[in-house]
Amino acid sequence: MSPEPNSERRSERARLAILDAVFDLCVSKGYAKVTIEAIASQAGVGKPTIYRWWRSKGALALDVLNERIGSNTDFPDTGDIVADLTTQMTRVTALLTSDTGRVYRGVIGEAQNDPELMRAMRETVVNPRIHGCRRRLEIAVKAGQLRADVPTSSMVDLFYGPVYYRFLLGFDVPDIRACTDLVEEVVAGLRP
Amino acid sequence: MSPEPNSERRSERARLAILDAVFDLCVSKGYAKVTIEAIASQAGVGKPTIYRWWRSKGALALDVLNERIGSNTDFPDTGDIVADLTTQMTRVTALLTSDTGRVYRGVIGEAQNDPELMRAMRETVVNPRIHGCRRRLEIAVKAGQLRADVPTSSMVDLFYGPVYYRFLLGFDVPDIRACTDLVEEVVAGLRP
Repeated sequence: MSPEPNSERRSERARLAILDAVFDLCVSKGYAKVTIEAIASQAGVGKPTIYRWWRSKGALALDVLNERIGSNTDFPDTGDIVADLTTQMTRVTALLTSDTGRVYRGVIGEAQNDPELMRAMRETVVNPRIHGCRRRLEIAVKAGQLRADVPTSSMVDLFYGPVYYRFLLGFDVPDIRACTDLVEEVVAGLRP
Repeated sequence: MSPEPNSERRSERARLAILDAVFDLCVSKGYAKVTIEAIASQAGVGKPTIYRWWRSKGALALDVLNERIGSNTDFPDTGDIVADLTTQMTRVTALLTSDTGRVYRGVIGEAQNDPELMRAMRETVVNPRIHGCRRRLEIAVKAGQLRADVPTSSMVDLFYGPVYYRFLLGFDVPDIRACTDLVEEVVAGLRP
């Protein structure tokens, strides 16, 4: 037996221990107070191990975020665009107000001053979901449920914009009732 | 003559020199790389002077932002709500993409992990403008130009949300043409 599989397993175990430590510390202390020292200590690894795999705390928190939210970017499709948008917007606000949302807030805050982190966040978290949403909106346009003369990229801004705006300027994000209202108000302007 | 006026003048001169130094350094180096040492050095004051007046770099940058954008929160009122919203949204995007917008981005980023800064930013920068916008929208509702059954607070989210969403997730903010489209798309759903 070659030693590699064991070494790979150990590496993977260390990687997961580090990601778990970052998540726990972000939730218990808040992103700003989390240090690489505290992560290494809680994960039982040395700081060099962390710096070998991640260039910064922000990059590490972004991996935690992606690990937690998964790679599924499917948008619900029941045939009813209003119901599906409401379902999805409710999911997004649930995420933002969850413990994982605290990690996301930390990453977005950091990304304002770290263009490389911003680009990585957009490519791994934001853009795949935007594309999933646009695919669903295009089906609704083809079905005659939404106007064909507004680009689906603008429609995405109208649905996600108000939610992120409230989140990032520190207002309460919309609750389920407000998500329903939001979708109805926007769709009212997007009907053929 | 009492010595106070001179001392007050000196204080005010030091305060303005500090605010100017923060602005210049944010523009030349980017918010993240600005240190209190560099601010003190450029303004020709001691670090204790800065810490006597401001609790953090974020609080200082917030004062710079307020100094630059001024206290005028009037919303244009020509009687034409579409024209006025387009004017205002164009102004907002011009601000966000200006040098002052770099300071604003730094403050918003910092505020994600500093609830006191978030509260101060909302109270001094965001809320007064939201109120100005709502007052203008209420006039339009009374004039029968906008629906009366959607709260003006939700309308504000629909106009400002997409702009801040694009700004804070690192996309290009809407240009003048896109601002016009945005206003038209949203207003389409808000007509009586």
